[in-house]
Amino acid sequence: MSATLTQQDLFTKHKTIIDNAIKAIHDRGFYAQYPEHPKPYGEEAPINGKAFFDGVQNTNYDELLQDNSGKYEGTEDSPYTQKPLGIKYPVSSPVDLVARSKEAFEQWRKTSVDQRAGILVETLEQIKNRFFDIAYATMHTTGQSFMMSFQASGPHANDRALEAIALGYQELTRFPNAVDWVKPMGKFDIKLSKKYTPVPRGIGLVIGCSTFPVWNTVPGIYADLIAGNTVIVKPHPKAILAAAIVVAEIQKVLQQNGLNPHIVQLAVDTVEKPITKHLAENSAVKLIDYTGNSKFGSELEKLEGKTVFTEKTGVNSVILDSVESLEPVVQNLAFSISLYSGQMCTAPQNFFVPESGIKTADGQVSYAEFVDAFKNAVTGLVNHPKMGAGTLGAVQNPDTVKRTNDASSLGGNTVLNSESVKNEEFESARTCSPTIIEVDASDEKTYKEELFGPIVLIIKTKDTKESVKLAQELAAEHGAITCAAYTTDSKIENYIEDQMSLAYAPVSFNLTGFIWVNQHAAFSDFHVTGGNPAGNATYVNPEYVIKRFVWVGHRKLA
Amino acid sequence: MSATLTQQDLFTKHKTIIDNAIKAIHDRGFYAQYPEHPKPYGEEAPINGKAFFDGVQNTNYDELLQDNSGKYEGTEDSPYTQKPLGIKYPVSSPVDLVARSKEAFEQWRKTSVDQRAGILVETLEQIKNRFFDIAYATMHTTGQSFMMSFQASGPHANDRALEAIALGYQELTRFPNAVDWVKPMGKFDIKLSKKYTPVPRGIGLVIGCSTFPVWNTVPGIYADLIAGNTVIVKPHPKAILAAAIVVAEIQKVLQQNGLNPHIVQLAVDTVEKPITKHLAENSAVKLIDYTGNSKFGSELEKLEGKTVFTEKTGVNSVILDSVESLEPVVQNLAFSISLYSGQMCTAPQNFFVPESGIKTADGQVSYAEFVDAFKNAVTGLVNHPKMGAGTLGAVQNPDTVKRTNDASSLGGNTVLNSESVKNEEFESARTCSPTIIEVDASDEKTYKEELFGPIVLIIKTKDTKESVKLAQELAAEHGAITCAAYTTDSKIENYIEDQMSLAYAPVSFNLTGFIWVNQHAAFSDFHVTGGNPAGNATYVNPEYVIKRFVWVGHRKLA
Repeated sequence: MSATLTQQDLFTKHKTIIDNAIKAIHDRGFYAQYPEHPKPYGEEAPINGKAFFDGVQNTNYDELLQDNSGKYEGTEDSPYTQKPLGIKYPVSSPVDLVARSKEAFEQWRKTSVDQRAGILVETLEQIKNRFFDIAYATMHTTGQSFMMSFQASGPHANDRALEAIALGYQELTRFPNAVDWVKPMGKFDIKLSKKYTPVPRGIGLVIGCSTFPVWNTVPGIYADLIAGNTVIVKPHPKAILAAAIVVAEIQKVLQQNGLNPHIVQLAVDTVEKPITKHLAENSAVKLIDYTGNSKFGSELEKLEGKTVFTEKTGVNSVILDSVESLEPVVQNLAFSISLYSGQMCTAPQNFFVPESGIKTADGQVSYAEFVDAFKNAVTGLVNHPKMGAGTLGAVQNPDTVKRTNDASSLGGNTVLNSESVKNEEFESARTCSPTIIEVDASDEKTYKEELFGPIVLIIKTKDTKESVKLAQELAAEHGAITCAAYTTDSKIENYIEDQMSLAYAPVSFNLTGFIWVNQHAAFSDFHVTGGNPAGNATYVNPEYVIKRFVWVGHRKLA
Repeated sequence: MSATLTQQDLFTKHKTIIDNAIKAIHDRGFYAQYPEHPKPYGEEAPINGKAFFDGVQNTNYDELLQDNSGKYEGTEDSPYTQKPLGIKYPVSSPVDLVARSKEAFEQWRKTSVDQRAGILVETLEQIKNRFFDIAYATMHTTGQSFMMSFQASGPHANDRALEAIALGYQELTRFPNAVDWVKPMGKFDIKLSKKYTPVPRGIGLVIGCSTFPVWNTVPGIYADLIAGNTVIVKPHPKAILAAAIVVAEIQKVLQQNGLNPHIVQLAVDTVEKPITKHLAENSAVKLIDYTGNSKFGSELEKLEGKTVFTEKTGVNSVILDSVESLEPVVQNLAFSISLYSGQMCTAPQNFFVPESGIKTADGQVSYAEFVDAFKNAVTGLVNHPKMGAGTLGAVQNPDTVKRTNDASSLGGNTVLNSESVKNEEFESARTCSPTIIEVDASDEKTYKEELFGPIVLIIKTKDTKESVKLAQELAAEHGAITCAAYTTDSKIENYIEDQMSLAYAPVSFNLTGFIWVNQHAAFSDFHVTGGNPAGNATYVNPEYVIKRFVWVGHRKLA
């Protein structure tokens, strides 16, 4: 534990981690994982994680170091058992949360950037010891498989948090704190002493989503904190536990270092009585990070006097032109749409296929043959006894199952109907396999909206040019976080790259094997470009950190 | 001329200028001036400048290399003669301007960052040869003195333009264009080739103001251009000529380098038939830079789907607590409020003075004694035969004279009435000396708004703490670009610094002699912090450039 280290010691201790992260962000060629291999979790870690999760159910969650009203609430349930977790969290009113955050701000803004950086990296070190607890918490609230829960909410989330700390540290120390400025006047010089201070904006509100409660939450938390802002974390009422553990660990490190734990607080509400809007509209809340639906996200973006970062919905496209070999391509795509039952913001939805079919090294594959091969790949994957249930995981929200089942009523030709998929470990798991529907390119109203869940629309186009045009328009008008394209023609590759760039959608070309369009790597991939309506919360982009503070320069006659 | 140099040669030629500028931006201690001393203007330059200005009046301005409708318009007049300049500029409809800009965008976005940087620095080299033309143009549209016109629209404007090029260049080349990314998978590696491209946002609209038609315009023009955006420059209808010369020089360099001159265009309108709103609302216009009144600025900020940079109005404060010696302080402040008749966005307006007066090394100066000393300093300056008329310059807009004359009707006690001041060189010059009014701290409605022009309100407060509180609230709620403070107590200095930082207003302490709060130096002072309602167009801040492009990363299986 860090109790015996001073704040400055923590900076010295962790400086190498920060320096390496800054280097990785600018090299962009590393596959980073925090902490470095070998993973120092220890053999008992998985067992302890399971024990934590078993023990925390049906209790009042008591790890937080924040004042509360004495009232407890909690309505989470597991998509794997479809039963309540029975965990209740201390609740506070928005007014109380903001008042405490304001008070803590006075202390945190005066803590130096070095000290903040040391403390924040130390919190990641402590969170690391809770990766298995967080994995179980994530799994049984989001429906992610255990493996994905561990990766996404554990090391990958810590990676994204470290990026924010490191990039923030770099920008906050970019200009000198003090300089002597000299203006030669001929016979004499005018000298001014100048100071430059990165001043935080105030209180940050970080609003979590129900599917990635840690990965989509920690970047905003840490970007706010490194810049000297205090934070109120408002997780989705159906996915609180993983975020609560993260907040508790940060609070512990703050307290051990003599700081006010209210620098970060957890705000808890229920679906029936949401408090997010009250918090967002509070005039002391200056920064908002939001992951969730477009409607509420766009409302938040319009609030005056706030700096808002959003990850909203998008409509991700797949452009199919030509491939070396069809089978590895449909296998790759089948996995992409099935992984966590299409509940990733990076999952593809709209497949654009020319009516003339797809060129392969073995000759032309007709449109119908492609549809058939893709359908078979999906069916093969979801029914695979070792792969199916684990790939799909469980479905977080019953509405997603309903949407997927009802998708055939959208119009078009249903190629594959969604079914529930047996999970050997969890008999009551809420599951559904993908629905595949063919629609015509003219049927834009069907495919222009995000259909959250494992729903695939195959859109028959005149040719690749039309495919690109439609994918570009969709991204520009309705947002896109990813785009997959398959072509063996370098001219067409350049064309797709250029045209999708104009809609600010990143394209992954010709992925096969163990790499999928859904995956955005820390220290390497900009996640959400910020150029289309899918949002502006661009991870590992300098803009993501520098808008959280303001440079103020004071000067005086020297 | 650059006709014989290729685009790449221009980059090589100017790379040192860019590198030095990047260094200066991060050192912040230099007094920079572009071009470096000795000034290579030549002895005939002033004479040629005068000849240009004499010749261009009552003509159709024909230097622009842009298509036009054949129609010409122009309604400028000189604040020094109060007569029309008679210069008419080619006009185009917003639709035509945007269509040409869209076409030019396809070429400019594909021009490399290096090439753009070389070309843009070359345009500054060419503009340098027009500094005297630009100075006369500025003087006889804005009313600035010749000296200020030359400095602000010449070398200082080029400095601010170079900052934008250099900071843009640094950010646009911050991440590698291409990397190999390797993910170790145990028995094998996954390899992706990744590309990172800074993609411009589209068309930028730069809206000029009537008082600083070049200094407030070129930063946005060059920040847009270096990032690959095309630009439509819409100067204020009463201050076109200086901006027209700048646009013409940029167009010439573009054409000499085989590029479409429509990459930058001049849009001209009249006060009666403004086109700014039409341009701003055009869906292809993605970036807006605006200097002007708060009402229209705030409207622009609310436009959806645009990135908007504003410099609006602010209410700048002077906090008087204690001084070594009173006389140099009132002299300095008298100059600050008189310089260009208070028409600078950095000019102070509200003077907060404790009812108990001001401590000096020679004992306490009472509130009344301060008011008297300040009034005498102003009267002495404006009536000084060698200093008065030159410091005040002329008044751009007749409304400003009216506002200054009518200020005594605002309430409070009039200490000094505005008068017209004789200008020996220009008998018909539109002039007015400062108005000084005393109001009480409780009379917030009088002093909370910007009173553009040479209007000073002296506000009697309980003590310095109240002075700071009011100055902080004003800055936070109504915006502030500068703040001047006088104190000999280091504890109070720290307190003022800290409290004004929370309103994101930069404080200049204890300025006396030949340096004034109005002056913001290139490569050193952040102009407009972006943290309060005065605007978010922060010169020499990375945010000012990085919001003009979007990083898009494409990747493919290697």
